[in-house]
Amino acid sequence: MASPRGFTVWFTGLPGAGKTTLARLLATELGRRGLRVETLDGDEVRQRLTRGLGFSRADRDENVRRIAYVAKLLSRVGAVAIVAAISPYAAAREAARAEIETFVEVFVRCPLTTCMSRDPKGLYAKAHCGTSSTNGRALSVLSFSCCSA
Amino acid sequence: MASPRGFTVWFTGLPGAGKTTLARLLATELGRRGLRVETLDGDEVRQRLTRGLGFSRADRDENVRRIAYVAKLLSRVGAVAIVAAISPYAAAREAARAEIETFVEVFVRCPLTTCMSRDPKGLYAKAHCGTSSTNGRALSVLSFSCCSA
Repeated sequence: MASPRGFTVWFTGLPGAGKTTLARLLATELGRRGLRVETLDGDEVRQRLTRGLGFSRADRDENVRRIAYVAKLLSRVGAVAIVAAISPYAAAREAARAEIETFVEVFVRCPLTTCMSRDPKGLYAKAHCGTSSTNGRALSVLSFSCCSA
Repeated sequence: MASPRGFTVWFTGLPGAGKTTLARLLATELGRRGLRVETLDGDEVRQRLTRGLGFSRADRDENVRRIAYVAKLLSRVGAVAIVAAISPYAAAREAARAEIETFVEVFVRCPLTTCMSRDPKGLYAKAHCGTSSTNGRALSVLSFSCCSA
């Protein structure tokens, strides 16, 4: 039986940078080429694996650890796991890389002003207005300091 | 490209009944036959996906929901997900079944007295001694009332 080698493509970047859009396009293209693909999108994952976690550093790290665990399992059975998650902390991404045999990190480079003008979930607007419910999330994205593209 | 059809085998039953042992044997055997297999064992999952959850009904249900989500993803990419989890509530197992296309539930039937004499993790002893730290967990296993073998 053929044993395809699985891998993980991890899109990281600011909200509004285009991670989810690129993840979907890549998933479609790889599926077209006959690969088994699952997309782990930050928002769905927060519903299914990490409900109850907030946006503190510790909670974001735990969120990334859980995504990495599932991506590892999918990669190990020969599938492609495509992750779209802000994952702003380099250390957490490095831990994911260490856990997953074949790991490709893609920093979706996009100017902050463009991300802010797109603002698909209204996070930047909330950050400016100081809306309390998602304030921690919104503000934290402004201090995003990764970069390993 | 061949597209193997994935599925999930879900072992449910009392602590000490033999779920993990059977899951490992099955994983080895299916792997020998060329299938891609991942085992989701209750204890490992509690470390990787559900840290922080306790043993209340709500927390147990959330635990099973997360396992079911990962098993669904693995099955969908053509792998075999083997789950070993007490999962005492039939409703939670039914929800898992509804989510996963091909789902085989295996109730590991074992007399309570045998499980208690094995007591691999000391849960039954703790239940009798009233040890507080795992008391909720230990006691709840005694009211396990599934059965769909």
